[in-house]
Amino acid sequence: MSDTDPDTIPPESPQADDYALSRKDVSAILQALDTEDREALVALMDPLHPADIADLLEQVNAFDRTRLIRLYGREFDGEILSELDESIREEVIAALSPAVLADAVRELDSDDVVDLLEDLEEPQQEAILDALDDDDRAVVEQSLSYPEYSAGRLMQREVVMAPEHWTVGDAIDFLRTAENLPEQFYHVTLVDPRMRPVANVTLGKLMASPRAVPLADITEDTFHKIDVLQDEADVAYAFNQYHLISAPVIDADERLVGQITIDDAMAVLDEEHEEDILRLAGVGEESSLSDNVVDTTRQRLPWLGVNLVTAILASLVIAQFEAAIAQVVALAVLMPIVASMGGNAGTQSLTVAVRALATKDLTGANVWRVIRRECLVGLINGVVFAVVMGIVGVIWFGSPALGYVIAAAMVVNLVVAGLAGTGIPIVLEKLGIDPALASGAFVTTVTDVVGFFAFLGLAVIVLL
Amino acid sequence: MSDTDPDTIPPESPQADDYALSRKDVSAILQALDTEDREALVALMDPLHPADIADLLEQVNAFDRTRLIRLYGREFDGEILSELDESIREEVIAALSPAVLADAVRELDSDDVVDLLEDLEEPQQEAILDALDDDDRAVVEQSLSYPEYSAGRLMQREVVMAPEHWTVGDAIDFLRTAENLPEQFYHVTLVDPRMRPVANVTLGKLMASPRAVPLADITEDTFHKIDVLQDEADVAYAFNQYHLISAPVIDADERLVGQITIDDAMAVLDEEHEEDILRLAGVGEESSLSDNVVDTTRQRLPWLGVNLVTAILASLVIAQFEAAIAQVVALAVLMPIVASMGGNAGTQSLTVAVRALATKDLTGANVWRVIRRECLVGLINGVVFAVVMGIVGVIWFGSPALGYVIAAAMVVNLVVAGLAGTGIPIVLEKLGIDPALASGAFVTTVTDVVGFFAFLGLAVIVLL
Repeated sequence: MSDTDPDTIPPESPQADDYALSRKDVSAILQALDTEDREALVALMDPLHPADIADLLEQVNAFDRTRLIRLYGREFDGEILSELDESIREEVIAALSPAVLADAVRELDSDDVVDLLEDLEEPQQEAILDALDDDDRAVVEQSLSYPEYSAGRLMQREVVMAPEHWTVGDAIDFLRTAENLPEQFYHVTLVDPRMRPVANVTLGKLMASPRAVPLADITEDTFHKIDVLQDEADVAYAFNQYHLISAPVIDADERLVGQITIDDAMAVLDEEHEEDILRLAGVGEESSLSDNVVDTTRQRLPWLGVNLVTAILASLVIAQFEAAIAQVVALAVLMPIVASMGGNAGTQSLTVAVRALATKDLTGANVWRVIRRECLVGLINGVVFAVVMGIVGVIWFGSPALGYVIAAAMVVNLVVAGLAGTGIPIVLEKLGIDPALASGAFVTTVTDVVGFFAFLGLAVIVLL
Repeated sequence: MSDTDPDTIPPESPQADDYALSRKDVSAILQALDTEDREALVALMDPLHPADIADLLEQVNAFDRTRLIRLYGREFDGEILSELDESIREEVIAALSPAVLADAVRELDSDDVVDLLEDLEEPQQEAILDALDDDDRAVVEQSLSYPEYSAGRLMQREVVMAPEHWTVGDAIDFLRTAENLPEQFYHVTLVDPRMRPVANVTLGKLMASPRAVPLADITEDTFHKIDVLQDEADVAYAFNQYHLISAPVIDADERLVGQITIDDAMAVLDEEHEEDILRLAGVGEESSLSDNVVDTTRQRLPWLGVNLVTAILASLVIAQFEAAIAQVVALAVLMPIVASMGGNAGTQSLTVAVRALATKDLTGANVWRVIRRECLVGLINGVVFAVVMGIVGVIWFGSPALGYVIAAAMVVNLVVAGLAGTGIPIVLEKLGIDPALASGAFVTTVTDVVGFFAFLGLAVIVLL
């Protein structure tokens, strides 16, 4: 490429802030589709990254999606499939002609094919496996034999390795003559005679060192082996905690079976966070924007059902105080405030606790200190809002006694919220239940029940 | 390292599943501290990664923390500071002697020093800047001149670059003789004569190609430039979307000023998610387990204050129906159920919408389809729970009319929840307000007000 070549920086090169598909791109593409102008379509789609094409397919409706795939035809890239949301992957695969699908899949790395296959139904799995060479098929089937969400599913089989006694020169000569090196690699992994990984050498260090230097002298300080059965969430945690770029995966005999690279770990970290956020909100963790109405309803219904039960439980508490409410209707007006404040404070504590458990920051060493802190915070906030609500109660209903009652109930419920918000996730974690999934229902039940009971109970004692 | 060397796999090498500090480690360390046994302490801490030592410091109480830092003394590694939670970083820096602090800081890369300085008060900033060489200090001060949370703050200045007309041989010769190559690098960035980056060549490709090949022939397909003023959250998004390993950072004239690597992008992605989760729960996004009671109270109070206002608003709605409640106390018993179900359904919709906005999946192309879907889901779930609650109402209170009322209110509130849960985050995003931060308060206000109003209003019409 010469200095004067005007193509050196093509005007279409990605600009700093256009990561997302622009609305203009989308309408131009849909127009090409409406006029069935294949040439224009391909010209518009060509500069797009497969991840952006996948986003496009997710954003258009099912009818346009199928038409687009048909018109785009043989240009369809395998990576688009990898990037697609699972909810529409099956639909897209079904829309591809067998020849296009086979071409698309053959372009992919083995770990991407595994990722693709995991979520498909049997017949589609077979169609994709049939498209592969025998060797690739064997590798993919072996990976599928590891449990879902394990390091074995996440890893790639291709590792560039060298015997631990080699020198820099040996390694360079090997790399120059080796065929089939992976597209991307960052380390040479040193192995002992039994194929157990012992250290990593970065390519940068390799290039910068004299040929005579033994590889063992320029290994990286941080070296972390990953068990093939390790949960992928823990793998992502290790990459983030120790700033790993790639890590060897070992089997039960500590032998090297593959490697995981940081880009895959980053994708897992992203998914895990997404799951946690959705679970905390009581949404099925697999949910996505591309889900249809039926799937979405099915995901949301169970949590709403749980919430209905807990809401009825709270109503049963209120029902015990019907006589009091009939006498002092102000109680009915004020009681949701106490419950609502408790629910919010409980959600605050539980979110902090769930995250701290996920990042392994909440441990035996500090659990009691954290619980004490949350209760104290609840107490202080409780007192602040007790004063505010006491005053509101007096001004609104002209009854100092009602002010005392709501103030006292507020303090009780906010302390309980701190205790339940921290304690419940910890207990669930100990029991092996995902605290992100179940804590919310328990904590709001506690704060609703305690909130109504404390307020109405105190009211009966003080006011009647 | 010979094959028979028993140190080849040290027995202390990190095992696959001990990422977190074990409780045993912590108690052994605390015991060494209590007996002031410096030798034992250093022996216990030595095998730990700086990230684990930072975790340890976060988990022990302030008293032990200071004693530990004093006893550990000169062994204190600069990376520990980088890994520490911001809430206790100042405290730890204050506990270090000036000599230990200077040593620790000098070990760090420039981007880590910048990260460290950002959150410190003036006097501590000065102490650290004074510890640096003049060159490093200039680099750090230049980085600090970029806005907070920009690519300029995140990037490292060190980039390995080559003129675009070089061959593989030129690059290899350069790398072999270059001094001061970065500790970790994965690409050689090709630049034009005006220092504008035009492509990346991976080190793996460089090693595997014959010397005569022009670098321009072996560049990576995916190449993404990042503006120095780009928000770091968008940088992390681009790395995740396009599977980047490193990307050049450019100034307004498109000149190369630094680079960002995936490990930094992964850390940002992790922080952004954490912030979103905490914001959705109404917890200050900077909150951490190491915060003290006062800081924690201060972070939580504002959101609880907002919630109090919205709860009072809902109570004002209830107050309009005092006469009805006095006549039919069952209304007071049942009304929280309608509000609670709406709140939960609204939270579900809003969480999905906030995430979809953050991942740029919710766009102009699909916004109406998503809103329609959420309303339809609300309608279906509303009908399901309307039937259930209608039956419960009839059985519990023996009043079919009450059953109709709660059923109808449930349908109304769940449709409104879907509409508000999707619409409010979208409107906030359009107004430039972070939807994760503010949506919750608005949505629950809507579902509370609509829930109480629909239920009590219908009750007045039907029952009285």
